[in-house]
Amino acid sequence: MSDQVKFVLDESHLPEAWYNLVSDLPEQPPPVLHPGTGEPVGPDDLAPLFPMQIILQEVATDQYVPIPEEVRSVYRQWRPTPLYRARRLEEALGTPARIYYKYEGVSPTGSHKPNTAVAQAFYNKQEGVSRLTTETGAGQWGSALAFAGGIFGLEVDVYMVKVSYEQKPYRRGLIEAFGARCVPSPSQETKSGRAILAEHPDSTGSLGIAISEAVETAAMREDTKYSLGSVLNHVLMHQTVIGQEAQLQLEQADDYPDILIGCTGGGSNFSGLSFPFLGKALREGKELRAIAVEPAACPSLTKGRYAFDFGDTGHLTPLVKMHTLGSTFVPPPFHAGGLRYHGMAPLVSHLQELGLIESRAYTQTEVFAAGVEFARVEGILPAPEANHAVKATIDEAIRCREEGVSQAILFNLCGHGHFDMQAYIDYFAGKLEDHEYSEDEVAMALAGLPAVAV
Amino acid sequence: MSDQVKFVLDESHLPEAWYNLVSDLPEQPPPVLHPGTGEPVGPDDLAPLFPMQIILQEVATDQYVPIPEEVRSVYRQWRPTPLYRARRLEEALGTPARIYYKYEGVSPTGSHKPNTAVAQAFYNKQEGVSRLTTETGAGQWGSALAFAGGIFGLEVDVYMVKVSYEQKPYRRGLIEAFGARCVPSPSQETKSGRAILAEHPDSTGSLGIAISEAVETAAMREDTKYSLGSVLNHVLMHQTVIGQEAQLQLEQADDYPDILIGCTGGGSNFSGLSFPFLGKALREGKELRAIAVEPAACPSLTKGRYAFDFGDTGHLTPLVKMHTLGSTFVPPPFHAGGLRYHGMAPLVSHLQELGLIESRAYTQTEVFAAGVEFARVEGILPAPEANHAVKATIDEAIRCREEGVSQAILFNLCGHGHFDMQAYIDYFAGKLEDHEYSEDEVAMALAGLPAVAV
Repeated sequence: MSDQVKFVLDESHLPEAWYNLVSDLPEQPPPVLHPGTGEPVGPDDLAPLFPMQIILQEVATDQYVPIPEEVRSVYRQWRPTPLYRARRLEEALGTPARIYYKYEGVSPTGSHKPNTAVAQAFYNKQEGVSRLTTETGAGQWGSALAFAGGIFGLEVDVYMVKVSYEQKPYRRGLIEAFGARCVPSPSQETKSGRAILAEHPDSTGSLGIAISEAVETAAMREDTKYSLGSVLNHVLMHQTVIGQEAQLQLEQADDYPDILIGCTGGGSNFSGLSFPFLGKALREGKELRAIAVEPAACPSLTKGRYAFDFGDTGHLTPLVKMHTLGSTFVPPPFHAGGLRYHGMAPLVSHLQELGLIESRAYTQTEVFAAGVEFARVEGILPAPEANHAVKATIDEAIRCREEGVSQAILFNLCGHGHFDMQAYIDYFAGKLEDHEYSEDEVAMALAGLPAVAV
Repeated sequence: MSDQVKFVLDESHLPEAWYNLVSDLPEQPPPVLHPGTGEPVGPDDLAPLFPMQIILQEVATDQYVPIPEEVRSVYRQWRPTPLYRARRLEEALGTPARIYYKYEGVSPTGSHKPNTAVAQAFYNKQEGVSRLTTETGAGQWGSALAFAGGIFGLEVDVYMVKVSYEQKPYRRGLIEAFGARCVPSPSQETKSGRAILAEHPDSTGSLGIAISEAVETAAMREDTKYSLGSVLNHVLMHQTVIGQEAQLQLEQADDYPDILIGCTGGGSNFSGLSFPFLGKALREGKELRAIAVEPAACPSLTKGRYAFDFGDTGHLTPLVKMHTLGSTFVPPPFHAGGLRYHGMAPLVSHLQELGLIESRAYTQTEVFAAGVEFARVEGILPAPEANHAVKATIDEAIRCREEGVSQAILFNLCGHGHFDMQAYIDYFAGKLEDHEYSEDEVAMALAGLPAVAV
């Protein structure tokens, strides 16, 4: 193995295609259903919301989908991203484990989100769309789409969950600096927003509500389409540049991971890192542990039900089979805005059902403690979302120490915490509260699941 | 020339030595003087404040000073940093100029400051120091030293200008996340601080006052030394890794700069980029334009006097010959905390006297306009300090267009603006006020210069 701590790739190693895990699965995931008919949706049903190239990618079965040169040209600004060996963390933990992390915080907006934002903006531009709508929670996705829209000359309207809009003016500032419009959700701009406000004038919003607003606006305007930052197959596929680069970088390091770790909100950064490795393991019939880590306060994978559900609160989307806490679920306040979605990517859910991945949940105080421990030795302050992956990594490294085994752990440091300093300040001030759902609470959240005979 | 937009170097190209411009100068800069005797200071005079290796570097005349392997090992985390060709900016400006920028925002704290913080922390640790004191304005330097102190196991006390301490809780949060102690200055902890508070109980502080507090604390404690983030020769030298890497990267690009541009507060990022190029131009007798860009609200190089002055408000430091606005000068509030120092690095001042560099000043609204223009096409939101360099670059590129000449411009994008979003929000809200000093105002600020017969 190499002594290096940083593994960089030059532009010639930027992936030329996205990897599609569906092609290597032993069993295909269930189809997406029309909520009225209960029948699988076709491309035409999705055409009001997405450009055709994106729809085709959503249902693609090819192993690889070529990345357009226009997209690769933008990727080149920050990709390939570095992969690090966390030697100082290993030393601090006294572990024989070899810890690696892929660092996506070097992107223009500080997270993995631009990997798909750039692709989506490109395909929309190519098909003559002039405006994109989307939702954002903490703002990582909203700022990524604002950046990508700016590059390709698209207007971008971001419906931002009201509580984040008010509490995170800096992410909003970044969205506006890139030239996008930021609307606090629920808003008076949409029927969905007005309906919520009529019933709950003080609503602080949720991701599910913001999605309804963005989808409604896109569906109503000819020149406008909708863009989603996680959950869907094409989004997960766009993120596979992360894992493909990591494979080359670990070759440089003359090593190979035993364990892959990523945090999961909608599932895209975990998928981006792990899918290329999982596909290889499936093709070669090898063992590989992949751990999806989520907040105990929004435990879709660990406590949700695997069922058909809506993607939004206003029930404007098709039905997808996923691990869900119910489309009206509103998690308690906690500091990882990117991990507050009621459902999990259908493909990630399917993998868990097939027994191909593991999942676990942590409370926020324990993940912040892990993040600060990481920052003090490695020098990078992770986003609160990424702290979940850091915590699982540290736990696995400690297990390696206790068992006296030297395994290789690779985790995705999916973003930096520069826009999340208030969360760290609250953590140091002892102000963070933890919440874990009981089975009863989950059952209550799930009471309103749609009845679908599948 | 290459089509590439990003030029990366692998670890094998990390510089092995810092470059010392003094070795190539036609005339040596004036010595540093003892304020009591008016005689040049010797190493022993500085020993209470700095470790001996740093003092020797401060007066070094060798062309290169080897970088210790322990420092290079930490540098490797983010160095070599990328160099970009700003093709989208060129296109937006319709300029024949070739615009390149070196991006230091990929460092752990988002600016060039860790380049010297790591070196200073290492030498202090090596000589048995257990605690460092320093000052910080906006917090870029304070967070860099906090990071470096964490790596080498040193305690770090950061005296942070009170107005920034209160207005920039996120930079303070980062300093504390890295494990350092952050003290609002003026404080009750020092004689200098108490003296200011006795006279001005509501003082919001200044860099000059914070330096006095940090220097006083270091001078009084055996186990504690002082660390400065700019101005001094050794700091400028540590930053030359920037320019040395850029030289290799421009070789990759098959190009060479006609113009170098950097913003200047104390002078270190400008020096780090330009000194290796200036040295080569001096050795080869070639022309090269290097432009130092400063705020019109703190115009030390463009309007200050070249004179011996104190580095701090409390007059605890030696006297250095520099362009200065007077050690008691307090600039009006503006959003580039790193450019609010009353003086300029003696070496940069000396270069201006020798006619080897140019300088210019801009108001803050015009530099923010330039920064937003840059962000929308290049995708990176610069720190307010760096916006000064962006503005000068755009102006030079427009001149190239008007003159129909294709020159190569290289500027230092010394940091990102993630911790400065309030400034952008204020800019968009039309709340920024501009201030330009008249000759009379400058003369008044200079009234208290010390009388030194040199």
